[in-house]
Amino acid sequence: MKTQVAIIGAGPSGLLLGQLLHKAGIDNVIIERQSPDYVLGRIRAGVLEQGMVDLLREAGVSARMEREGLVHDGFELAFDGRLERIDLRGLTGGKTVMVYGQTEVTRDLMEARVACGAPSFYNASEVELHELKGEQPHVTFTHQGQRIRLDCQQIAGCDGFHGVSRQSIPAGVLKEFERVYPFGWLGVLADTPPVNEELIYANHERGFALCSMRSPTRTRYYVQVSSEEKVEDWSDERFWDELKRRLPAQTAARLVTGPSIEKSIAPLRSFVVEPMQYGRLFLVGDAAHIVPPTGAKGLNLAASDVNTLYRILLKVHQQGRTELLEKYSDICLRRIWKAERFSWWMTSMLHRFPDTDAFSQRMQQTELDYFVGSEAGRRTIAENYVGLPYEAVE
Amino acid sequence: MKTQVAIIGAGPSGLLLGQLLHKAGIDNVIIERQSPDYVLGRIRAGVLEQGMVDLLREAGVSARMEREGLVHDGFELAFDGRLERIDLRGLTGGKTVMVYGQTEVTRDLMEARVACGAPSFYNASEVELHELKGEQPHVTFTHQGQRIRLDCQQIAGCDGFHGVSRQSIPAGVLKEFERVYPFGWLGVLADTPPVNEELIYANHERGFALCSMRSPTRTRYYVQVSSEEKVEDWSDERFWDELKRRLPAQTAARLVTGPSIEKSIAPLRSFVVEPMQYGRLFLVGDAAHIVPPTGAKGLNLAASDVNTLYRILLKVHQQGRTELLEKYSDICLRRIWKAERFSWWMTSMLHRFPDTDAFSQRMQQTELDYFVGSEAGRRTIAENYVGLPYEAVE
Repeated sequence: MKTQVAIIGAGPSGLLLGQLLHKAGIDNVIIERQSPDYVLGRIRAGVLEQGMVDLLREAGVSARMEREGLVHDGFELAFDGRLERIDLRGLTGGKTVMVYGQTEVTRDLMEARVACGAPSFYNASEVELHELKGEQPHVTFTHQGQRIRLDCQQIAGCDGFHGVSRQSIPAGVLKEFERVYPFGWLGVLADTPPVNEELIYANHERGFALCSMRSPTRTRYYVQVSSEEKVEDWSDERFWDELKRRLPAQTAARLVTGPSIEKSIAPLRSFVVEPMQYGRLFLVGDAAHIVPPTGAKGLNLAASDVNTLYRILLKVHQQGRTELLEKYSDICLRRIWKAERFSWWMTSMLHRFPDTDAFSQRMQQTELDYFVGSEAGRRTIAENYVGLPYEAVE
Repeated sequence: MKTQVAIIGAGPSGLLLGQLLHKAGIDNVIIERQSPDYVLGRIRAGVLEQGMVDLLREAGVSARMEREGLVHDGFELAFDGRLERIDLRGLTGGKTVMVYGQTEVTRDLMEARVACGAPSFYNASEVELHELKGEQPHVTFTHQGQRIRLDCQQIAGCDGFHGVSRQSIPAGVLKEFERVYPFGWLGVLADTPPVNEELIYANHERGFALCSMRSPTRTRYYVQVSSEEKVEDWSDERFWDELKRRLPAQTAARLVTGPSIEKSIAPLRSFVVEPMQYGRLFLVGDAAHIVPPTGAKGLNLAASDVNTLYRILLKVHQQGRTELLEKYSDICLRRIWKAERFSWWMTSMLHRFPDTDAFSQRMQQTELDYFVGSEAGRRTIAENYVGLPYEAVE
């Protein structure tokens, strides 16, 4: 079997890249280890930057998002008994974010994939990448009992942190940068009306809390917990009580609680590998980098990698500009490091750390106080939150 | 002996407060443990914020500064082989800083003090503060063999970190916030022309470096050294060699070296006590807070405390508004914490830390890259560097 671009992974980045390439007339095949339902079952981020929204439009998969997504002009920072709004639209000259769940993005992309008839192999096992540095790169995998060989010109590794793509690069090639944070996020999904029209990020002495939502009737709330916590120890009641304690009183009083649909604990990690490519393999999104969820950059960063790889592949396949392939990693990393910085900063500023002394606590409070009190400070937060501009490909 | 305000310490803050009060017709007496020459021998900061410059003008001691001081419109950040200018004037709507040594400020203030005839006691020993919470606060000290009692209405503790003022407050009253940084600054004063018209703050893998100056013919350079370094181990040659290694190549090539006039190692510390007052005693400057020197906030923070205390004492002694005295600490601390934050941030961003891992190093580089590359980021640096506005007294 043969294609131009093999895409490993049918998460939102693999599907989005596939859709963009397909629309541009570039053949591609998606190979996914899991079933479609498994992929859709993963509850993830829900805040899309303007750049990602535009890219979904370009891919022709934005119709439902335009109808159901919630445009947010700002968000709130709660600290020290205060509730301070970051006016995204006003501070960035009109930019906003779109609240629309990753699950919904994935569903829209899957439907578009099926509709356009481009090939996808779900439940593919024993996926292996071959001859990444050679003239005949190819992917082999087992599908419905058959071993399949897929020859291709480029391989997009969109298979996440634990995927086979990064692991296929020989030891010693990649430099790793990592920070593991000494806490996690306990998240609850519930069919309750959001406590606030906009997201609230709360710094509290008991730990961080986040009030988010997926729709006008579905909420996603989080509280910081220690790394050792077990989700079984958190009844719904305990979760709601803890969340209320960490919110400003007037917000807590408005909170509508209800039974959880999903409840899980996620660790927080910063991770980057350099370079993001090896021969014909190009790592995209979580396969190359992880951000802690504070600031909602994970999915958006994957989308900006997709944007870069897509624009490069366009010029490679349509204009023969193969020299651009060498630039993929450098172009991506410029923006990735800045998003890593913002996510690290939001995390550092909003969470309680086990080794926080009195001075550090005051620095954290003062950082919030200064940044929300200064117009320039608010602008730095806003321009990062809506997403820094995509890097040009040239 | 009797006065309205007893001032402990004849450093720049004590002298400036004394001068302002004297001009306003409020009696004050300055008591200093050291000799005038000893006070003048301390080599300290040399970058004055606009607010401090204005306050020196108001005190009528700015004539020589206006002639000899150097107005700086910007400064440079060196990192990653780059040299990036922060355009203070352009980014703050016209604000600048004044390069004029603390020693010169002190000399001008001492001369003004002598000229106006207000009483100062140098070489005062066994200084003790009494009845700070009582109706008859007073200071006792020994001067030229005589024990003197000075009755007063308020006491300004301008005697620095190691002074008697803060130590006169009973244990348990003050809450202390502290961060000791695991390195120091090795500083050299030399009669050489500055390598650059503006200051250069350099982040380098061998450690921080700073190119500063006192005048067009006198320079002050620093390199970060470990806390264990001894100044005896640093010949002039070794210092210049190390400094050159940490500067961008084109800057190092221009560096003019020469024999050092002074060479010393200073530790770096962040320190704040709350509250900054106890009964009739009001702590000013280093007596209440220390910043690491990165960003040149130490002397300037003392000046803003002087500004606050002076405006309060004016209203107390001229309008009887004694209730304002209770507000002194709160008013000062709002601005102090922000300057502590900026100094901590500049220090964190520019120095090499013993526990810095690969991820932290990239965060530091990316922080610099983001902040100098974003107009909003540059504005946050500039507005802090020229000095945040003084807090109003009302």
